Amino acid sequence: MLKLLVLLAAFTLIHASRHYSPIIAALGFSLIGFTVTDWMIPRVSSAFVKIGCFGKDLSKPGKPVIPETIGAISATVYLFIMFFYIPFLFYKYLVVLTSGGGQRDVSVMETANDHLFPHGKLSEYLSAVLCLESTVLLGIADDLFDLRWRHKFFLPAVAAIPLLVVYYVDFGVTYVLIPEFIRKLCGTSKTTVDLGALYYIYMAAMAIFCPNSINILAGVNGLEVGQSIILSAIFLINDFIYLLIGTEASKESHLFSAILIIPFLGVSLGLWKWNRWPAKVFVGDTYCYFAGMVFSVVGILGHFSKTTLLFFLPQIFNFAYSCPQLFKLVPCPRHRMPRFNEPDGLMYPSRANLVEDPPKGIMIPILKVLYKIKLIDLDLDEKTGAIKNCSNMTLINLVLVWFGPMREDKLCRTILTLQFVVGLLAVVARHMIGSLVFGHDNLHFL
Amino acid sequence: MLKLLVLLAAFTLIHASRHYSPIIAALGFSLIGFTVTDWMIPRVSSAFVKIGCFGKDLSKPGKPVIPETIGAISATVYLFIMFFYIPFLFYKYLVVLTSGGGQRDVSVMETANDHLFPHGKLSEYLSAVLCLESTVLLGIADDLFDLRWRHKFFLPAVAAIPLLVVYYVDFGVTYVLIPEFIRKLCGTSKTTVDLGALYYIYMAAMAIFCPNSINILAGVNGLEVGQSIILSAIFLINDFIYLLIGTEASKESHLFSAILIIPFLGVSLGLWKWNRWPAKVFVGDTYCYFAGMVFSVVGILGHFSKTTLLFFLPQIFNFAYSCPQLFKLVPCPRHRMPRFNEPDGLMYPSRANLVEDPPKGIMIPILKVLYKIKLIDLDLDEKTGAIKNCSNMTLINLVLVWFGPMREDKLCRTILTLQFVVGLLAVVARHMIGSLVFGHDNLHFL
Repeated sequence: MLKLLVLLAAFTLIHASRHYSPIIAALGFSLIGFTVTDWMIPRVSSAFVKIGCFGKDLSKPGKPVIPETIGAISATVYLFIMFFYIPFLFYKYLVVLTSGGGQRDVSVMETANDHLFPHGKLSEYLSAVLCLESTVLLGIADDLFDLRWRHKFFLPAVAAIPLLVVYYVDFGVTYVLIPEFIRKLCGTSKTTVDLGALYYIYMAAMAIFCPNSINILAGVNGLEVGQSIILSAIFLINDFIYLLIGTEASKESHLFSAILIIPFLGVSLGLWKWNRWPAKVFVGDTYCYFAGMVFSVVGILGHFSKTTLLFFLPQIFNFAYSCPQLFKLVPCPRHRMPRFNEPDGLMYPSRANLVEDPPKGIMIPILKVLYKIKLIDLDLDEKTGAIKNCSNMTLINLVLVWFGPMREDKLCRTILTLQFVVGLLAVVARHMIGSLVFGHDNLHFL
Repeated sequence: MLKLLVLLAAFTLIHASRHYSPIIAALGFSLIGFTVTDWMIPRVSSAFVKIGCFGKDLSKPGKPVIPETIGAISATVYLFIMFFYIPFLFYKYLVVLTSGGGQRDVSVMETANDHLFPHGKLSEYLSAVLCLESTVLLGIADDLFDLRWRHKFFLPAVAAIPLLVVYYVDFGVTYVLIPEFIRKLCGTSKTTVDLGALYYIYMAAMAIFCPNSINILAGVNGLEVGQSIILSAIFLINDFIYLLIGTEASKESHLFSAILIIPFLGVSLGLWKWNRWPAKVFVGDTYCYFAGMVFSVVGILGHFSKTTLLFFLPQIFNFAYSCPQLFKLVPCPRHRMPRFNEPDGLMYPSRANLVEDPPKGIMIPILKVLYKIKLIDLDLDEKTGAIKNCSNMTLINLVLVWFGPMREDKLCRTILTLQFVVGLLAVVARHMIGSLVFGHDNLHFL
């Protein structure tokens, strides 16, 4: 009943949007996405278990088996929403008459509706959806076949091919702005530099980075979806700043960003309802790739990829912090997720044993410095001062080191709060740094 | 080594195409598609078996287990080929300068290359690829979850949503020509009639028909792929007739058709190599849906859907012929594929037992008439003349009734030959009927 009311509200919004703005339609589609995802998940979960898509929740008493790869549902719902969204974004372009056998004779060209996008952006939009659909397809392949790390790492770049190719034929901008201080340093008056093919490599790197960085900040119920929801919120705050006080030229990009992210927020909230602590479903790599790709696409097509990276600061920190273990400078156990202590039901930092498998010599002083500045927890031998073990180097364990053991849901909330605060600071920093580095910002008032 | 040479040839063709025609590039991509599919199938098949995608080949001694859903490989290879094909179809459109934060300022508009498509067709092309990718996604869901018939029947219409939506905003033609005799009958001078929303229902029906009709003409090694290859050949013959002697206006549609079908032919031939008798892999519903959708898309976007249906005559016949069993007027066993007789290694028509489960009364005289005109085989009780059993009503069994028992590979070849002959006749009929019904044809010489 409530679902029906929500759907009714959604359709009203979508209908009303005709006369106002695609943002209103986005809200409507977002509501539909939430409702459909929320409705489908409990109905299809058992089918996922039946075909072997399930995992053990190691942080619960009895390690229950729950369905995996359920994020594929949200992603599929999102894709179909984005199909139905098209007529609300792009006006009817040509009225044509066909005379059979594939002949067509253009006769009328309709006038544009002010609120909608120019028709030329349709191929950009379609390439974005195509890229996301490819991500889902490859993500499902990864979840089904359990690919090796060195293969799965590059999957998002493969999925980004339609985006990059359409970018090439449709838009083809490979210039970037030169920051003012570099301009002065080189004594050049050029404000841009053409990166050419390098720019495509840069975009592919973005497409690899965002999905993988979400995928490795995981291991606690709800964290993959939660961080994506927070990221959506940060992106939307930035978009609305531009929509309210941005220059005319920047508005289109940020409107585009908002219309991709608002429905994504809807399907993610639907998934969150089932994935949050205590999780009834796992999201799978499919969702992490898909979510990361939404942000890559928005950053790439909106031409604000540096800002996108700024909003990914917590993920970047988590990746950089993980590097010593990922590159085996410090021993890396198979799983680095926090340890569930059944007697008190709390999560504790998991630890790497450094006695059996000592770290590279160069790392020992570094670990000790990190310990001093509270960026790691060490167990030291009282007599020799040698390191017995260290907390695993992930943001999740670090939060447990900082704030002490806590229940899984509180742990997730703490990380998400931290992420949100950092994100807000990033939005502020973006516009202050933007003015400093480039000598101007693209907001009216800054 | 041979593979490398083929790839070299492919790249040469693609490179050369720059100065000639997208058809040459299509040949190159087709070669690449063939080589990659052929290379991947043996390498990934075992992974499919491991995750439970396998089936028993009932028409072989010992009923060996072989991997299933391998058509998903061809389909995925096709999709990625079509991404890389884009720059060879659409010229670079705009040269733009960006000034950060998503601002962009259009500065130059490049001139068109005569051989390539106008840029406006890019969104049409992307919607076609999006529709095919959705088909693959839903096809994989079908293969994994083994959906019920009443659900899977409509899947292709769901997958066609992106195509129909983009058709709506981009092209929006819902007129059809009125045949001359109807014009005279109604005394109207209007040459077209606007079907409006009905036209979208018609297109959705096309999208449902082609994939499902390929899916039900199956049960013999290689037949799903084989019939798709023959269909491709027929479509290409028709396309080249238009490209050589068609009116200017029809050329674009048929060029579009050819560029979608030529690479499809490549990946299908790669699959055929492994699926033909004795099959080492099964193609799965994914391939049937995907193949059918390629032809639907071509027919819909090229505005020659009636011609498309004409080329599907054998599939239409198979469907119509199956109807008495599908609608339970005649008992329908679980499997209707021909019966493999191990001692002589030949295929015999499978039969439905009409003694245990007699057909509806109205069907008895019909069955006897069909028997007279050799459209079914009946076993009659010598004393009473009652029907004991009948051959199952599929085109495959009918071919066995006509030509007698034969080995599986010969059976497949016979059906494909029949399909090819009917297809050629359809091409001829198309242009003769076209002239008769509409008072003119859209070829120059007819």
